[in-house]
Amino acid sequence: MSEAGPPTVGVDLGGTNIRAVAFDAEMNVLGREEAPTRAQEEPESVISRMADCVRTALESAGLELTEIAGVGVGAAGLTDWRSGTVLLAANLGWRDVPLAEVLSRELDGARVRADKDTNAAALAEARLGAGRSFGHFLYVTAGTGIGGGIVLNDALYRGSTGGAGDIGHVVVDPDGPPCGCGDRGCVEVFASGRGIVDRSKEALVAGEPEAEASPLTAEGLTTESVFGAAAEGDAFAAGMVRRAGEMLGLVLADYVNVNNPEAIVLGGGLRRAGDIYLEPVERELRRRSLPALGEAVNLLAPDLGEDVGMIGAALLLAEPDAEGN
Amino acid sequence: MSEAGPPTVGVDLGGTNIRAVAFDAEMNVLGREEAPTRAQEEPESVISRMADCVRTALESAGLELTEIAGVGVGAAGLTDWRSGTVLLAANLGWRDVPLAEVLSRELDGARVRADKDTNAAALAEARLGAGRSFGHFLYVTAGTGIGGGIVLNDALYRGSTGGAGDIGHVVVDPDGPPCGCGDRGCVEVFASGRGIVDRSKEALVAGEPEAEASPLTAEGLTTESVFGAAAEGDAFAAGMVRRAGEMLGLVLADYVNVNNPEAIVLGGGLRRAGDIYLEPVERELRRRSLPALGEAVNLLAPDLGEDVGMIGAALLLAEPDAEGN
Repeated sequence: MSEAGPPTVGVDLGGTNIRAVAFDAEMNVLGREEAPTRAQEEPESVISRMADCVRTALESAGLELTEIAGVGVGAAGLTDWRSGTVLLAANLGWRDVPLAEVLSRELDGARVRADKDTNAAALAEARLGAGRSFGHFLYVTAGTGIGGGIVLNDALYRGSTGGAGDIGHVVVDPDGPPCGCGDRGCVEVFASGRGIVDRSKEALVAGEPEAEASPLTAEGLTTESVFGAAAEGDAFAAGMVRRAGEMLGLVLADYVNVNNPEAIVLGGGLRRAGDIYLEPVERELRRRSLPALGEAVNLLAPDLGEDVGMIGAALLLAEPDAEGN
Repeated sequence: MSEAGPPTVGVDLGGTNIRAVAFDAEMNVLGREEAPTRAQEEPESVISRMADCVRTALESAGLELTEIAGVGVGAAGLTDWRSGTVLLAANLGWRDVPLAEVLSRELDGARVRADKDTNAAALAEARLGAGRSFGHFLYVTAGTGIGGGIVLNDALYRGSTGGAGDIGHVVVDPDGPPCGCGDRGCVEVFASGRGIVDRSKEALVAGEPEAEASPLTAEGLTTESVFGAAAEGDAFAAGMVRRAGEMLGLVLADYVNVNNPEAIVLGGGLRRAGDIYLEPVERELRRRSLPALGEAVNLLAPDLGEDVGMIGAALLLAEPDAEGN
């Protein structure tokens, strides 16, 4: 154990997998464990499996529960960080699940903090990553869906009910396709991985002229196949990817115009597509921002890799609680 | 002079008028003066006229410059509140004008603070108005243009370069009509007084079917005439006003989804149109917000009247400066 402080465990609770990592005080990885989430089961079973992951990660690190400062969890949904209750998580099918309370009970009363996963990731980039030098930045993750977290004055800004940072539901086309949130034309229905696939399928099924000339077919279409075709020069796929990037860039410009941040850290799986996605994002961000604000903003890649969620979850334990302690 | 503290002067610098009010420590009005801005003149002349207004307001209050805590100014443009420099004010034709410095020199070295006018108004509502009970709210003014200010943790949130709160340039139609800011389809081109007139003229000139049936004509059209016709049951005018309200409501929903505020205070001249404008604003705000966030937000009328800008400008003097003093 480091002299700087006790170890911690960070847990990422996603729609597909639970991932737990034990860290020392310098955030070096001491042990890890992974298990399927199985979101169709009762929340209690899922939380019980989370507890097993924490125990196994600790065992592989040669640590006891009593030796750690606590367990931090980043959950895939709107979470009340004060109580650690998951208020609404569509991918988990959870509503009002007292995650921190139940997990603490499963772990012999260990201290547990929970927040939404994108806040955990934003915190990790703020403390140890690309956001280190910025007091105010927006962390965005563009993957299957689009989400984010806001760091203001060097601290997570969660809003009045924990929902701040969710830029996936900014509307870019008031009469656009329906979104899972109940609204229409949210940026997520255009610019997320799922959105790119859905919009591409629509165009392929409708037989639009460019779609007709594409080797892609609606059946079995994935984000990877659209990006792959775009990279190989398919004009239809390239157009779909470009439009997705432009829509995300537009929403980032809206954020800049309203919130005037110092930086935006853009993470998530879609980054892997490279310039065919990132170039239109940045172009629209710059073009559509008010000049005085758009020139001032830095668009950055995240510094932290695949463990960003678990790192951030563990870092939650060092943040002030709802009472500022 | 009140025992609670020295008097102050608040100045509103608009595109049309300069208005100065002397206040006691309880923000009772002791004296006031008004003069035309004459934006086509050199900034030095305009600032000199501001100084005259301050002196006259003080005289009518029976006060000397040496008796006041200072002069606060709310200026119609992007302002660096740290230095009191107006960075960009389209309606004034100003760029990088060291307003606070020059005005202080004109006023024998009196303490001068300056910020953008919408921040001053937001501060007034935060301290003495509708925002009193809320730590985080968005103040919006919908009049000739659309602007705003953000209050977070009971303090003005200005962003990294003073531009925070400017919701007028959130894009609601990516391919929409050009905006003065250089972008297209900003909410201001649909939902502001100027936007309502411009869009109505377009439809009247284009001879759209509903426009043909309207008694309105493009020539001499004003915001008042559109609202008047809408109130009298003209379907064309009512449709234009409804669309304007819906576009503003959409942008407020975007703000709610991203920033999760406790409240929105909606001020500005367009409020006077009443329900024909306000009903669609609130309907779209509720309908397009994420349920968990939209239900949590209060949509409020401002408490303060026509002096809100001068009250807020004077209150700037009691706020921490850039060093937090």
